[in-house]
Amino acid sequence: MRKYKVAVLGATGMVGQKFIQLLANHDWFEVTSLVASERRVGKFYGEEVEWKVSANVPEKVRDLEMLPMDPKKVDADIVFSALPSDTAKKVEAKFAENGFVVASNASAFRMVEDVPLIIPEVNPDHLGLVEIQKKNRNWDGFIVTNPNCTTIVLVLSLKPLMDLGLKRVIVSSMQALSGAGYPGVPSLAITDNILPFIKGEEEKVEEEPLKLLGKFDGDKISFADLSVSASCHRVPVIDGHLEAVWTEFERNVDVGDVITAFNSLRPLDLPTSPEKVIIVRDEPDRPQPRLDRDEGNGMSITVGRIRKDRDNAIKYLVLGHNTVRGAAGASILNAELMIKEKLI
Amino acid sequence: MRKYKVAVLGATGMVGQKFIQLLANHDWFEVTSLVASERRVGKFYGEEVEWKVSANVPEKVRDLEMLPMDPKKVDADIVFSALPSDTAKKVEAKFAENGFVVASNASAFRMVEDVPLIIPEVNPDHLGLVEIQKKNRNWDGFIVTNPNCTTIVLVLSLKPLMDLGLKRVIVSSMQALSGAGYPGVPSLAITDNILPFIKGEEEKVEEEPLKLLGKFDGDKISFADLSVSASCHRVPVIDGHLEAVWTEFERNVDVGDVITAFNSLRPLDLPTSPEKVIIVRDEPDRPQPRLDRDEGNGMSITVGRIRKDRDNAIKYLVLGHNTVRGAAGASILNAELMIKEKLI
Amino acid sequence: MRKYKVAVLGATGMVGQKFIQLLANHDWFEVTSLVASERRVGKFYGEEVEWKVSANVPEKVRDLEMLPMDPKKVDADIVFSALPSDTAKKVEAKFAENGFVVASNASAFRMVEDVPLIIPEVNPDHLGLVEIQKKNRNWDGFIVTNPNCTTIVLVLSLKPLMDLGLKRVIVSSMQALSGAGYPGVPSLAITDNILPFIKGEEEKVEEEPLKLLGKFDGDKISFADLSVSASCHRVPVIDGHLEAVWTEFERNVDVGDVITAFNSLRPLDLPTSPEKVIIVRDEPDRPQPRLDRDEGNGMSITVGRIRKDRDNAIKYLVLGHNTVRGAAGASILNAELMIKEKLI
Amino acid sequence: MRKYKVAVLGATGMVGQKFIQLLANHDWFEVTSLVASERRVGKFYGEEVEWKVSANVPEKVRDLEMLPMDPKKVDADIVFSALPSDTAKKVEAKFAENGFVVASNASAFRMVEDVPLIIPEVNPDHLGLVEIQKKNRNWDGFIVTNPNCTTIVLVLSLKPLMDLGLKRVIVSSMQALSGAGYPGVPSLAITDNILPFIKGEEEKVEEEPLKLLGKFDGDKISFADLSVSASCHRVPVIDGHLEAVWTEFERNVDVGDVITAFNSLRPLDLPTSPEKVIIVRDEPDRPQPRLDRDEGNGMSITVGRIRKDRDNAIKYLVLGHNTVRGAAGASILNAELMIKEKLI
Repeated sequence: MRKYKVAVLGATGMVGQKFIQLLANHDWFEVTSLVASERRVGKFYGEEVEWKVSANVPEKVRDLEMLPMDPKKVDADIVFSALPSDTAKKVEAKFAENGFVVASNASAFRMVEDVPLIIPEVNPDHLGLVEIQKKNRNWDGFIVTNPNCTTIVLVLSLKPLMDLGLKRVIVSSMQALSGAGYPGVPSLAITDNILPFIKGEEEKVEEEPLKLLGKFDGDKISFADLSVSASCHRVPVIDGHLEAVWTEFERNVDVGDVITAFNSLRPLDLPTSPEKVIIVRDEPDRPQPRLDRDEGNGMSITVGRIRKDRDNAIKYLVLGHNTVRGAAGASILNAELMIKEKLI
Repeated sequence: MRKYKVAVLGATGMVGQKFIQLLANHDWFEVTSLVASERRVGKFYGEEVEWKVSANVPEKVRDLEMLPMDPKKVDADIVFSALPSDTAKKVEAKFAENGFVVASNASAFRMVEDVPLIIPEVNPDHLGLVEIQKKNRNWDGFIVTNPNCTTIVLVLSLKPLMDLGLKRVIVSSMQALSGAGYPGVPSLAITDNILPFIKGEEEKVEEEPLKLLGKFDGDKISFADLSVSASCHRVPVIDGHLEAVWTEFERNVDVGDVITAFNSLRPLDLPTSPEKVIIVRDEPDRPQPRLDRDEGNGMSITVGRIRKDRDNAIKYLVLGHNTVRGAAGASILNAELMIKEKLI
Repeated sequence: MRKYKVAVLGATGMVGQKFIQLLANHDWFEVTSLVASERRVGKFYGEEVEWKVSANVPEKVRDLEMLPMDPKKVDADIVFSALPSDTAKKVEAKFAENGFVVASNASAFRMVEDVPLIIPEVNPDHLGLVEIQKKNRNWDGFIVTNPNCTTIVLVLSLKPLMDLGLKRVIVSSMQALSGAGYPGVPSLAITDNILPFIKGEEEKVEEEPLKLLGKFDGDKISFADLSVSASCHRVPVIDGHLEAVWTEFERNVDVGDVITAFNSLRPLDLPTSPEKVIIVRDEPDRPQPRLDRDEGNGMSITVGRIRKDRDNAIKYLVLGHNTVRGAAGASILNAELMIKEKLI
Repeated sequence: MRKYKVAVLGATGMVGQKFIQLLANHDWFEVTSLVASERRVGKFYGEEVEWKVSANVPEKVRDLEMLPMDPKKVDADIVFSALPSDTAKKVEAKFAENGFVVASNASAFRMVEDVPLIIPEVNPDHLGLVEIQKKNRNWDGFIVTNPNCTTIVLVLSLKPLMDLGLKRVIVSSMQALSGAGYPGVPSLAITDNILPFIKGEEEKVEEEPLKLLGKFDGDKISFADLSVSASCHRVPVIDGHLEAVWTEFERNVDVGDVITAFNSLRPLDLPTSPEKVIIVRDEPDRPQPRLDRDEGNGMSITVGRIRKDRDNAIKYLVLGHNTVRGAAGASILNAELMIKEKLI
């Protein structure tokens, strides 16, 4: 099989690096273009990047010259975007307009009405918005987004609970340092400390699930009738977002029902899809970020400590790898889904 | 003023060390006896303890010989207990029976009907149980307890909210390492990691507030009509428990009401009482354990990020020093209150 | 090829777990017996071990029943020992006496005259001691040891320098937490802290290199004429010992000579042997534990910051994975060497 | 006593904050001016600074308006400089030229021939250079510097060893995060990691001691005849530089001699001077950064693990608070010395 040519926008940041790492040996994709900010253009990736995600920059991309954010300079079938939100707004639109398929991890377009916000195991049918988007905007290409890292991990666990009558979610997150990028959180700020605030995060975690769990009627998404309240915190962990979730249901629900529901979420037949989407652990002290974040090559989420609470409520913990399942891996899985669905 | 003679039970553990540190220069108390487990009896404190809370064991206690858990060997007016719960059950009763006032940080007697569970700023009137306890048990002395560290920090913040119609609390804690004692949590277990489980903690945080916020009718405590649900987690922080609190009220409540309520909790006129019981911060990223835990010499709690939620709910963060306000300082403040109330 | 049956002594500790992890998919070895302390005998490994080195106990060993330290109960060709030194003294001898080949990571026999202390790339010829050992002791089996973790990493870097006239080494180590086993270093002892002492470590690092770099004359080892002085420190790093090395030579030596020497150390043709034994990095800020410890699956060491000093001296940093190259992987590589050398 | 008016240059950085913290309740000094970079001029300190060294900005400076780096705008007797080296070069000279006494922590002038590099307990007589400096440069004021943080801690321990015939020093440092300023070291770079490189540090640690331990002949400093070789490393510790020191002497020296020498270094009768300059600990595992850094309010250094080595050598560990004794406190102590010596 011929590999699809892919570009990475924002290739030197933490998520950009994770894209490159995950794409280095991908069966369907081959990185052909790295796009970076103006001051890096023309430099070799391997010499310019402050590579932090492993010992060495993958051989294949080391000698790629970085390109400007100009669709005409980029030769690729798919463009993965690890851009900051404000840049993404302009640049992604420009690429889509010029015929590229943009699989974006940026927040810029996530809540835009005609842009699909996708987790392949949750709402693949929302890709139906692509047609509408292209028509609306008269674009040759299109943009498909994945949610915020904390949202993805949460919503993968909420999806199977919807049929049990889920109506309210209160989540408290303990989020990894890599979520803040590089240099990100200063060591002096987080050593022997917790930061009880992550700018813009709670809003995303409260809004995005309603779109993700909403219904596509062929025309637009009706948001899910669900209330999500979040408190988001940064902890001294490298990778892996841990979330303490309190869920309330319309009717009585047992721990057994919840486990069954979690186990019922099926993996997709895609290269980046893990064997098990949700791993349910029954030890009293799991999931833990360092032990569980790499399950399914970082694409599985792990739940544990599922326990009954008063008032039709269930509490549990959920963990996922924030830069894999929660970012780069999410965009890649979206692209794989689009290929399977013949959108590319 | 003559100082009261005080003993510390369980003097070599983390909370025992904190007792000794806080008592080293206390205006009312003088440490005269250190009580430890059998194998340490007869040894000098300064030579035996693995002192971890500062550079040096305080001069005054360095040469105290450790005593057995035998009331006859101890010369003191007040006995502070930092014993583990199972040992506390027997030993504290024996001391109370033999005429000692036991101010205990152990959990053994907290929920026992005729034993006061006290936070001086919250429910000083519950000390009325002392008379009943002495009569019930035919003891010369008595036991007064303070709550679990996470409970204290939480309940100090809940107390002022009761008049606003508080009815439901969901709390997610990020608890410090010192709460697990020494050696406690292995470094390999918590480096680049979070532990999502603390044995017995959630039960305490869910039950103790109901007694603390309950009403004493001269005879017994009627528990508060409140629902508390907790998820407790260990984080790589030395001291300071941080708690993300979601509170629901019977009626609409504004952020301003909550701030006013927090500021209304008055300090007591006692040596260990802080100038301000609750410090309200308005920066977006406070409280933080390392920056705020030592406020009021570790006896203040700090709240921040007070924000309105749907459904008559308010979210906030609260932080307190777990081994000071949450343990040794709590017992000491209780003893000070008992002196003021002429119970000693 | 039929796989060799191997047993692990001390299977539940940190090094024991690492043995099991490295042996789980080994081409030549199959774990058939797990030997543990009395209280664990008869229990299933997967239920008993506090597994810390990855998410899950490898499937193959999960249901192995743990065996006592009795050679008669163990069915294996090779016994890997992760025992503490005092236990190793008796148990390893018993196994060797009963015909087992013992590849030991314990310190008990390392400096014993007729016991080979081996790093395969450094002194494979010292295996000649095996014959002498068996004759001396009238044993059917024999013991071969690998050095202390800090020693191995150091000596792999010193070996190529011997021909340049190395005469004096001063080393300051920054050692990982996993070197202290589990539970090992309490988190309260090492958070925001360094421990400037590791019991018995400096002695090992100063003595073992002299034997390793010594000459075997067919009869016994003459120790190398070299002076090694060590200062050993524990740092808050999970895996990977970093060592700041100052080396003095008999004559002038340039950085280029040293790099050439490092690059000249050839890998062996053995399953666990890395492609490159010593990786030389030229960035100013490498090696770093988290980035470089997994090179060569943890079997490569990485050197960097090679710089000229006054007085025929050279300074550099060296890093290696302490529980792989420095412990379990070292024993396994020794066993592979023995097979290649037809000693097994 | 009237207090001296003092200004702080570079008031918002980590060392600037430490200056302000240490000066907040100083007996001789009162902060009257805070000088910052252009973009902060005119703003209130309390609103502008990202205060990191304690819970709250000291009351007294909260409402000070920040001033530009212009001597004419500053009203002060003494100017403390926490400027980066390149800025210091111009700005400090301008202040000295305009009659200010500049007590600087910056490296810009440390090695300049007519500028005193002072540790009050080590080389107070080097202040004799002040007269020469003023004459040379025709300045009304003058500059006095303190050494690099790692140098100060080291040289305080070396000074008493000079009379024992010290001739060679090899030091390996484990340096705290606060030494890199704020934001400084990214948390992703140092979590579960060590950085084996600190730019420019080794050069300073190798050169500055020779000037500090040199002799002033009334005219200029003759550098000490000593060789210092350094390897500098960053560790995940908030405050406190720990240094493993290997010292070689011209003749045999015993541990007892070294202890006697350390204890002989007398404190000065100055407000910031600690009761004991060097604290000698005999526990096997001290000094430790978190336990020992605050001794003498951060102005004492602590040595431990003094042990004999081959070849007339002695090894030991030394620890000091890098932003107090190693930076802000050092400049303040220098200013106090200058007042005592009637230079101000």
